[in-house]
Amino acid sequence: MRDAYHEELEALADRLVEMTRLVGSAISRASTALLDADLSLAESVIAADDAVDALRDDLDARALDLLARQQPVAGDLRVIVTSLRMTADLERMGDLARHVARVARRRYPESAVPAALRSTLVEMSQVAERLVAKAGSVIASQDVTAALELERDDDEMDRLHRHLYTALLHPASPYGVEAAIDITSVGRYYERFADHAVSVAGRVVYLVTGQRAEELVEPPA
Amino acid sequence: MRDAYHEELEALADRLVEMTRLVGSAISRASTALLDADLSLAESVIAADDAVDALRDDLDARALDLLARQQPVAGDLRVIVTSLRMTADLERMGDLARHVARVARRRYPESAVPAALRSTLVEMSQVAERLVAKAGSVIASQDVTAALELERDDDEMDRLHRHLYTALLHPASPYGVEAAIDITSVGRYYERFADHAVSVAGRVVYLVTGQRAEELVEPPA
Repeated sequence: MRDAYHEELEALADRLVEMTRLVGSAISRASTALLDADLSLAESVIAADDAVDALRDDLDARALDLLARQQPVAGDLRVIVTSLRMTADLERMGDLARHVARVARRRYPESAVPAALRSTLVEMSQVAERLVAKAGSVIASQDVTAALELERDDDEMDRLHRHLYTALLHPASPYGVEAAIDITSVGRYYERFADHAVSVAGRVVYLVTGQRAEELVEPPA
Repeated sequence: MRDAYHEELEALADRLVEMTRLVGSAISRASTALLDADLSLAESVIAADDAVDALRDDLDARALDLLARQQPVAGDLRVIVTSLRMTADLERMGDLARHVARVARRRYPESAVPAALRSTLVEMSQVAERLVAKAGSVIASQDVTAALELERDDDEMDRLHRHLYTALLHPASPYGVEAAIDITSVGRYYERFADHAVSVAGRVVYLVTGQRAEELVEPPA
């Protein structure tokens, strides 16, 4: 039987998973707002980021309270410190979803996404949603193998990100300065979103194995 | 007389200040590399970021060790948790300086900065250097008034950042897609660098007062 203290520790993980769901919903809706130039959806994503921040505040307060009251050691200490770090990643992912929504709002009623780059942005949004969903599963399952797989999705995100620049810089590129600004910004937001999801998964790896994710995977050739 | 434990706690602050110095040097040299299209300087900034990461690793290991061995409470606990958060900010600031240097390297032997935007970028680099120097002073002094002043420099950074977009998007803008990509990226790096410096100062405010910086300043009109 678990005591109240261990129940509180386990509740941290549940709330972290809940935070990944909020952030996943945010990036999904922000992407739709961007791709469909949907102003009201963009506004709703921007407004909803407060809930992510509130959940972060609540989680951090619980973690600090556990540190102060329970003076945890070893594994329990690592769970709490990891929670503090994951909330920072997830809060930032919420910000990045909001940034995507803001680009949609800024260009409304026009679309910030040129037609020829739409499919790349659709793929980036899908990879972002997949990454945050996997990060949530990994927090719940503590499955190290699954955690290490996020690197592969991140490689895919990097490839899509590079493709945006290649397309913008192509000699026959029809894009102007405004599109270059928007696409550079949005591309960066998705890429950073993915980095933070990988970071969350890496923290699970560290929590379970005591080793960094980098030490457990082959360096890229 | 301080015991070994309290000496270790104080050493955290010394090393955080040292970290701000490394990061300050990085952004200063990255800015020169960018403005002067200096490839070898850019390379040296990129290589030097490992030292920032190593200092972060060392500091975090010390903080976690103190948490595990000393089971600190109240003020001491806050010092340690704040250290863990500041290293994350400072490590990211190091990354952003490296990103600025990478843009310089990517465009070499050309300059990534169009002549007409040079003065704005010079100002942004000066504000960035000032912010990280002030963040270091504030960590050392724990001066809440000084900490709250960083917001003003950050407002200046935001103004300069907006100016870049205004210049890029001006109807008579002579800039092409490549300049738009570079300036959008670099502008974002400086702006994020400034945000993290403000965050470091805000953590000092929280450490000393238990209140968030936002609660101690008038909301903008």
